[in-house]
Amino acid sequence: MTDTAEFPPDDDRGPEPGPAGWLSAEDIAAVRAQLPLVYVDAIPVHVDESGDVVEVGLLLRATPLGTMTRALVTGRVLYHERVRDALLRHIEKDLGPVALPQVPASPQPFTVAEYFPTPGITPFHDPRQHAISLAYVVPVNGDCRPQQNALDLAWLTPEEACSDTVQAEMVNGQGTLVRQAMAHVGRLD
Amino acid sequence: MTDTAEFPPDDDRGPEPGPAGWLSAEDIAAVRAQLPLVYVDAIPVHVDESGDVVEVGLLLRATPLGTMTRALVTGRVLYHERVRDALLRHIEKDLGPVALPQVPASPQPFTVAEYFPTPGITPFHDPRQHAISLAYVVPVNGDCRPQQNALDLAWLTPEEACSDTVQAEMVNGQGTLVRQAMAHVGRLD
Amino acid sequence: MTDTAEFPPDDDRGPEPGPAGWLSAEDIAAVRAQLPLVYVDAIPVHVDESGDVVEVGLLLRATPLGTMTRALVTGRVLYHERVRDALLRHIEKDLGPVALPQVPASPQPFTVAEYFPTPGITPFHDPRQHAISLAYVVPVNGDCRPQQNALDLAWLTPEEACSDTVQAEMVNGQGTLVRQAMAHVGRLD
Amino acid sequence: MTDTAEFPPDDDRGPEPGPAGWLSAEDIAAVRAQLPLVYVDAIPVHVDESGDVVEVGLLLRATPLGTMTRALVTGRVLYHERVRDALLRHIEKDLGPVALPQVPASPQPFTVAEYFPTPGITPFHDPRQHAISLAYVVPVNGDCRPQQNALDLAWLTPEEACSDTVQAEMVNGQGTLVRQAMAHVGRLD
Repeated sequence: MTDTAEFPPDDDRGPEPGPAGWLSAEDIAAVRAQLPLVYVDAIPVHVDESGDVVEVGLLLRATPLGTMTRALVTGRVLYHERVRDALLRHIEKDLGPVALPQVPASPQPFTVAEYFPTPGITPFHDPRQHAISLAYVVPVNGDCRPQQNALDLAWLTPEEACSDTVQAEMVNGQGTLVRQAMAHVGRLD
Repeated sequence: MTDTAEFPPDDDRGPEPGPAGWLSAEDIAAVRAQLPLVYVDAIPVHVDESGDVVEVGLLLRATPLGTMTRALVTGRVLYHERVRDALLRHIEKDLGPVALPQVPASPQPFTVAEYFPTPGITPFHDPRQHAISLAYVVPVNGDCRPQQNALDLAWLTPEEACSDTVQAEMVNGQGTLVRQAMAHVGRLD
Repeated sequence: MTDTAEFPPDDDRGPEPGPAGWLSAEDIAAVRAQLPLVYVDAIPVHVDESGDVVEVGLLLRATPLGTMTRALVTGRVLYHERVRDALLRHIEKDLGPVALPQVPASPQPFTVAEYFPTPGITPFHDPRQHAISLAYVVPVNGDCRPQQNALDLAWLTPEEACSDTVQAEMVNGQGTLVRQAMAHVGRLD
Repeated sequence: MTDTAEFPPDDDRGPEPGPAGWLSAEDIAAVRAQLPLVYVDAIPVHVDESGDVVEVGLLLRATPLGTMTRALVTGRVLYHERVRDALLRHIEKDLGPVALPQVPASPQPFTVAEYFPTPGITPFHDPRQHAISLAYVVPVNGDCRPQQNALDLAWLTPEEACSDTVQAEMVNGQGTLVRQAMAHVGRLD
C-alpha cells in the first residue's frame, strides 16, 4: 500500500468519514482491526503497437523524513463500487484526469496481493491493516500528471523497474508486485 | 452467497462475535452497510487423470419455506487469514474434514464475483451486503460429506450443472458463476 | 477456425507458399496430417470507459452454398512471428488497418481452444487440421471495416452474441468460444 | 526447451518417425524451418495442505561436455493429442509413472513461452526451432524418479530455484520461466 502511516491522510486511509450513521473514528479503528479490506493495485504501463510493455509508471513520494519512495497506484474499493470503477477512480486520482487508462475487460486480476499487518506471512505488508488487493496491469495512453502527494511520475523500462536500485526504493512489497506484473506480461528477465 | 437471510445463522454471516473489543451487533450492521466484505467462492469438482473436469459438486439446501436450492461453497475471509486458508476452511466446513481439496497453487482467481445488495449491477446479488468474492475451481479427491445446514452434496456433470433445470435451482447468480467456472475449464458447451 | 474448406483460399489456410526450399503442396498436406498448428483467435470487443465489454464484433461470411455464418478473427502464427504480432496482423487483415486494437499486454490467453479434425473430443472442430489456438479478448477503438471475404462486421451486445440465434450462426465451436470469452469478462448471463 | 541439440535424440526432438506416409528426415528439417511447433512446459511443484508451493522440482542433466544443467519438464504436443494429455505424458516420461501429477483443470496456461531460434526476441531461445510453449505449474504428490537422460531430480525451495546460482544452471530461458512461475504462485520474493 502506498498510503502508509507517514503520509498525510487521504481517501485511501480507511472507511470514509460520512453522514450520520457512518462509523465513528473509533469504530473505524475497530473495523480495521477485525476485517480485511478490499483494495486494488494498478501497475500503469506504456505499451507499443503490439501490446508489449515498454515502460512502467512509478509514483515518487517523499516521506516526512525526506526519504524518497516509489509507489504504485493503489486504493480501497468503496461500498457499492465495482472493482473496475475503483481502478479507474484511483488511476485518475493519482495520474490525473486525462491518463486515458485501458481498464482490463476481465475482472480476473493477475494476482491477489495480501498485505498483512504482520510482516513475513506474504511478501506484502501494511502496518495499518489487513488489505486484500486485486492487482491489474493497466496500459495508459494519455498524458499523466501526478496528483496529490506525489512529487513525480517516472516511466522506467521493465528492466529498470526490476533493478535492485529501484526495488530498494519501494516499500511494503510493492517491488515484488512490480516484478510479478512484469513476469505476467513476459518482461521479467 | 449461499448463506442468505433465510438460512440459520452460521459463521459466514458477518463479522464474528468475539471477545471484548470486537464489534457489537449494531456495529456489524453498520460495517455491512459501509464496506465491501471479502469472500471466497469454491466450485468443487472431480477431475480425471488428465485434469479434465468430470463432475461438479453442488450443495443442496432447504429454505425455511421448504424450497430446495443448490449452492457453492462460499464464505468470508477473516482478519489475518490468507485467502488460501479461507478456501480450505470453508471447503472443510461444507464438505467435511476428509474432502482432500487441492487448493490452487496460484492466488489468481478465475474470476471476481461482485455481489451487490442492489440487483442488476452485476450478475451477482447479495441482499445483505456488498461482497467481493474471489472464485476458484477446486478439485477434491476425498470423501465429501455435507456438513451443517446442507442436506446433500450432489455430483453433476458439467452439462447437468449448466442445464436450465439446475441453473433455476441456484440463487443470487451462483448459477452464472458455475457456468463461468465451466467456461474456464473448457467444459461449457 | 473461420477459414473452413468452403471459403476461398487465403493466407490462413496452411504453410505459406514460398521461395525455393519451402514445402510443396503435397508436403503441406502431409504436415497438416501430422502436426498440430498454432493459431490465435481474437474476440474483438468494444468497451466503455471502465473497461466493461458492451459489444462483440462478429464477421459475417457467406458460404458457397449461400448460407451466412458469423466468425471470429482467427489465423495461423507464422514461423518466427510473435503471438502478439500474429494477433495484430490477423486483426488488421480482417478488420482493416485503422481498427486500433489493444493487443493484451500479457501473453496469457483466456483459454486455449483445441480444434480437432475429429468432432467431439473438445467443443472445437476443424475438418482440415489439428489447430491449437490461443484465444484473447481484444478491445478495438478505431474504425473497423471488414476486409477480404467478409461481407460485414456486426457489433452485438454480449447477450445477443450468446443468444441461441447468433450461436446457431457460428460453426466449429466458435459460438462456444464467444461464450467462454463473455464468461471471462463477466458478461455471461 | 530441455532437449537441446547436445542431448541424445528422444521423442521430443521433432515430428515422430512413423509408418509410410509420415514425413522423412529431410521433410522434418524443412518443417522445423517453416512452422512454429507446439510445446508444453511443466513446472513440477510440491505444495502444502493450503496449496502453497514449498518446493520446485528441477531435472539435472549432463551435457556431452560434462556440464550440469537444470531443466523443466518439456516436450511437444503430438498430432491429435490434447494439451492436458501431452502434459501428463511428458511428466510421466520425465518423472516416472507414479509421480501422480495434478494436471490443471483449466487449459489457461500461466504464460506462453515463445522459444525463438534467434536469441533476444523473447527471453526464450531454442537453437533448433521456433517453439510456442504453453506453461503450467503442476503439483505432484507421488514418488518421482527421473527417467531417461536425467541424472537426478532435485527439489528446491522457491527461493533456491530463483537464486543466481540455480538460475545460472538453467539454459534457453528456463530460469526465467521458473521465476515467472514463482511470480504466478506468489512465491517470487
